Amino acid sequence: MTNQSTRKILLLNVRADFPPEIGLSDRHPLVRACRRTSWYAEAGDVIASPAPIDREFLDHVGGTLGFDAGTISVVLRDRVLTDEVILAPDFVAELRLAIADHPNWRIMACYVTEGVAELAERLGIGCDGSAFAAERGSDLLNRKGHFRRLAAGIGMPLAAGSVVQSPTRLARAIEQHMPATGAVIVKQHNAGGGLGNVVLAADDLGPLPGARETRRIGPDVAETAEKLWTELSQEHDPGVVVEVYHPAARHMFYFEYLVADSGVPRFVNSGTIRLVREGTAADERLSWVGLELPADLPPHSLAQALTHATRFAVLAADIGYRGYLNIDAIVTASGELIFNEVNARWGGGLVLHTVASRLLGEDYADHSVASSLRDVRPVPLARVVAAAREHGLDLTPERREGVVVLACEPTQTEALECLLVAPSVSRVRELETALRTVVEAL
Amino acid sequence: MTNQSTRKILLLNVRADFPPEIGLSDRHPLVRACRRTSWYAEAGDVIASPAPIDREFLDHVGGTLGFDAGTISVVLRDRVLTDEVILAPDFVAELRLAIADHPNWRIMACYVTEGVAELAERLGIGCDGSAFAAERGSDLLNRKGHFRRLAAGIGMPLAAGSVVQSPTRLARAIEQHMPATGAVIVKQHNAGGGLGNVVLAADDLGPLPGARETRRIGPDVAETAEKLWTELSQEHDPGVVVEVYHPAARHMFYFEYLVADSGVPRFVNSGTIRLVREGTAADERLSWVGLELPADLPPHSLAQALTHATRFAVLAADIGYRGYLNIDAIVTASGELIFNEVNARWGGGLVLHTVASRLLGEDYADHSVASSLRDVRPVPLARVVAAAREHGLDLTPERREGVVVLACEPTQTEALECLLVAPSVSRVRELETALRTVVEAL
Repeated sequence: MTNQSTRKILLLNVRADFPPEIGLSDRHPLVRACRRTSWYAEAGDVIASPAPIDREFLDHVGGTLGFDAGTISVVLRDRVLTDEVILAPDFVAELRLAIADHPNWRIMACYVTEGVAELAERLGIGCDGSAFAAERGSDLLNRKGHFRRLAAGIGMPLAAGSVVQSPTRLARAIEQHMPATGAVIVKQHNAGGGLGNVVLAADDLGPLPGARETRRIGPDVAETAEKLWTELSQEHDPGVVVEVYHPAARHMFYFEYLVADSGVPRFVNSGTIRLVREGTAADERLSWVGLELPADLPPHSLAQALTHATRFAVLAADIGYRGYLNIDAIVTASGELIFNEVNARWGGGLVLHTVASRLLGEDYADHSVASSLRDVRPVPLARVVAAAREHGLDLTPERREGVVVLACEPTQTEALECLLVAPSVSRVRELETALRTVVEAL
Repeated sequence: MTNQSTRKILLLNVRADFPPEIGLSDRHPLVRACRRTSWYAEAGDVIASPAPIDREFLDHVGGTLGFDAGTISVVLRDRVLTDEVILAPDFVAELRLAIADHPNWRIMACYVTEGVAELAERLGIGCDGSAFAAERGSDLLNRKGHFRRLAAGIGMPLAAGSVVQSPTRLARAIEQHMPATGAVIVKQHNAGGGLGNVVLAADDLGPLPGARETRRIGPDVAETAEKLWTELSQEHDPGVVVEVYHPAARHMFYFEYLVADSGVPRFVNSGTIRLVREGTAADERLSWVGLELPADLPPHSLAQALTHATRFAVLAADIGYRGYLNIDAIVTASGELIFNEVNARWGGGLVLHTVASRLLGEDYADHSVASSLRDVRPVPLARVVAAAREHGLDLTPERREGVVVLACEPTQTEALECLLVAPSVSRVRELETALRTVVEAL
C-alpha cells in the first residue's frame, strides 16, 4: 500500500481567507479562477471546487498535459469554500467517499486555514504545518504590519513606512512619508491582490500598480486620514500601514517558494509582473497584462533579492509555516530594491510554472520564457484550441514553444487567459501577435 | 569619539589555517597573495602582513581607488601569521601602537581563528563571532565530512558520496561510486584550494579541476585505497570523503556571503571559475585562468543554486559563524546542480568585487563583468600601469571599463594578476587581447 503514489485533494478555497467585505466581491471571476487552478490536477486527483469545472475543460487539461482527465473527480459546492463549508458533514462525507478507493492522499489548498487542518484530520490524511494553521499562523506572514516587522528583523529592504494605530498617527505618517516621492500607499492589514491598498499622491498620477485606487491628496491631511481610516482600518484588527510609494518601478517581480514538510524552503519559480496603461486620459486604468517567468532582473539585483527572499522563506519555515509562499518586490527607478509584501498561498505564476514544468521539464526556465496573457478576446474553448493547433501554435513537448489556453469563462463574458512559451521574450511577443490574429479571425 | 569612522586591522593570516603539510608549500606565492589582499585597505587602516607590501604597490592601490595610501601602516612579520605569531607579545605591542591614534577599530582577517579572537580581546576591539572562533567553529563548515553532513541536513544537492573511516571502507566506497561517471574524487577533510583532493579515474582523463592530481585507477582497488589513505587521511582527524566526480562541468561557480554581527547573511558576490587546459598531451595541466563576476548561470539553475546557498549561509549564521563564506558548486554536463564545498574565509573573488565596487558602485554587476587574468607576463608594475594608461586601458569610474593590475611579484618571477572590467564578456575579451598586446610590447 505504501508503495502507491500519493494523490491529492485539490482544495480550491480561493478567496476563503479574504475578509468578508473583499471575499464577496466579484472582481476575480470565480469560474475562471477555478478552471485555472485545475492545471494542478494529476491523474486520480479530487478537485473540491466552489464553481463548476466542466468535463470539456478537464479534458483540455488532460489532453494538453497527457493524462486521462476522466480519472479526476470533482466535489462541487456553489459557494466560496470557507472553513464552515469544508467542515460541513455532507462535504466531509462526499470527500471521504471520493478518496475511498486509494490509500495515500494529501491536501493541496490555496490557503492552509484552520478548517483545512481540521478537514485533513477528519479525513485521516496528512497536512503539513497543520498545528500552525490551526492557530491561523499564516496571519503572521500575510498581515501587512506583521510582514514589516518580520522583514525588518532580518534586514530586508522595505519602503520607508510606519505601522499606525489611529487616524491622528495616520495623518502624521502621511505627512512624514509624502515628501520622499510625492506619494504614499496606505495598506489595510488583511487583504489581497492590492484590494486593501490606496495610494495618496500630491499630483495626479493616474492609476498605479499595487493599489485599488489612487487619490489626489487635498490640503486637509487630517480629514483625508480620518476618511481613509474609516475605509481601511478593520474592526477586528484596527490599524493600517503607511509607506513611501515608488510610482515608476523599473522591475516588479515575485519569488515563489514551497515549504514542504522537511521545513526547508524550495525555490519554485519567479516572475515579472506586466502592466500596461489603458483607456483614455480621463478614464485611464492600469491593466495587469500577465506574468512573465522567470523574473528578468540584472545579476546584482537578482542575487540580492533572492538572498533576502530566501532568508525570509527560512524564517517563515522556522516559524512553522508549510505551503507556498510568494514574496513581492520591486526595483525602483533609482535602482533601489524594496520588498512589498508576502502572501502565504499559491501565487498567480504557479499555474504557468506547473504547465511549463510538466510539458518542458523542471528546468524549463533555463532556456524558455513562460508568459501569460490575461486579455485575449473570449471565444469558445474548442474553437481557439482547434485554431491554435491548425496554425501550429499549440505548445507541445516536442515543439517547445506555443500557446496553452489556461482559463476561460464558459459564457465568454470574460477574457481568455493564455500561456505562451518560447525560447525568448521576443519570440513570446511574436507568438502573442500570431495568437491574437488567429483569435480575431474566429 | 563614537562618531568617528571604524578603521580596520587587515590581518593577512593567509594559509594560517591550513594543516602544516600544506601551509608550508609555496604553490601560492605569499608576496603576490599579500599585495593582492591590500586592495581591502582604506585610508588609515593597518595591514598586518606575512610578506612585504612596498610603498610603490600601496600607492598604486591608493591611486587607483582614490585615497592617500600614505595613511596606511604595515606591521610586517616575515612568516605566515599563525595564531602563535599574532599572539606573540611583540606583535601585539606593535599593533597596539599602530592603532593608538584612532578610537574605533575592527579586525578583518582571512581566517577568524582562535588566535584572532584572542588578539581582538587583547587589543580591546570587537571581533564578531569570537566565542565561536575560539572553539575553532569554522571547522564545522570547512571540514569536508562536516560540510556533507550539514548540507545533507538541509537538502542541498551533493554528489553521491561517502564519509569513510578506514582504508577498507575507502576501497568499498571507490567501487561503489566509480561506475556513475568513471571517476571519483577523494577528499582530505581539512585542506584548501583542492590541494587535499585526488581524482581516481578509470580512463586517462588528464588533469581535472578541483584536485591536485588525477590518477588512473588500477585493477587492485584495495591497494589504491591503502595508498590514498596513507597520503590523505590526517593523523589528527582520520578519514576521507569519497564522491562521484563529474569531469565536464557545464558551470563552475561560487557564491560569497558575509555574515556580519547582525547574524543575517548578506550576499556579496558570485563568480564563474575559468579554467583552460595547457601544455602538451604528455604534460597537460589545467590552469586556473581567473574568475569572472557575476556567475553566469541560466535563470532556473541560478535561482535553485542561490536558494540552497542562502539556506546554507543562514545555517552557518545560526550555528554562530561570522565572517565571509564561500560556497562552491557546479552544474554538470547533464544539468545537475551539485555543491562541492564551503570555505569559511574570504574568497578569491572578493578582491575583484572590492575593486569593482569601489570604482563603479555596489551594483556594478548589474551592468558590468569583472574578470581576472592570472597569467599576464610579468613586467615591472610602473611600466605596465603607465602603458595601460597611455593606451587608454586603465579602469576609471568615468570610463567604466578597463584594466587594474591586482597583484605582482616585485622580482617579476610570477605572472601578473589583472582585473578587467567591461559592460560585457565579449568586451572583456577584447580588453584582454589589448592588454596582452600592450604587455608583450614592453
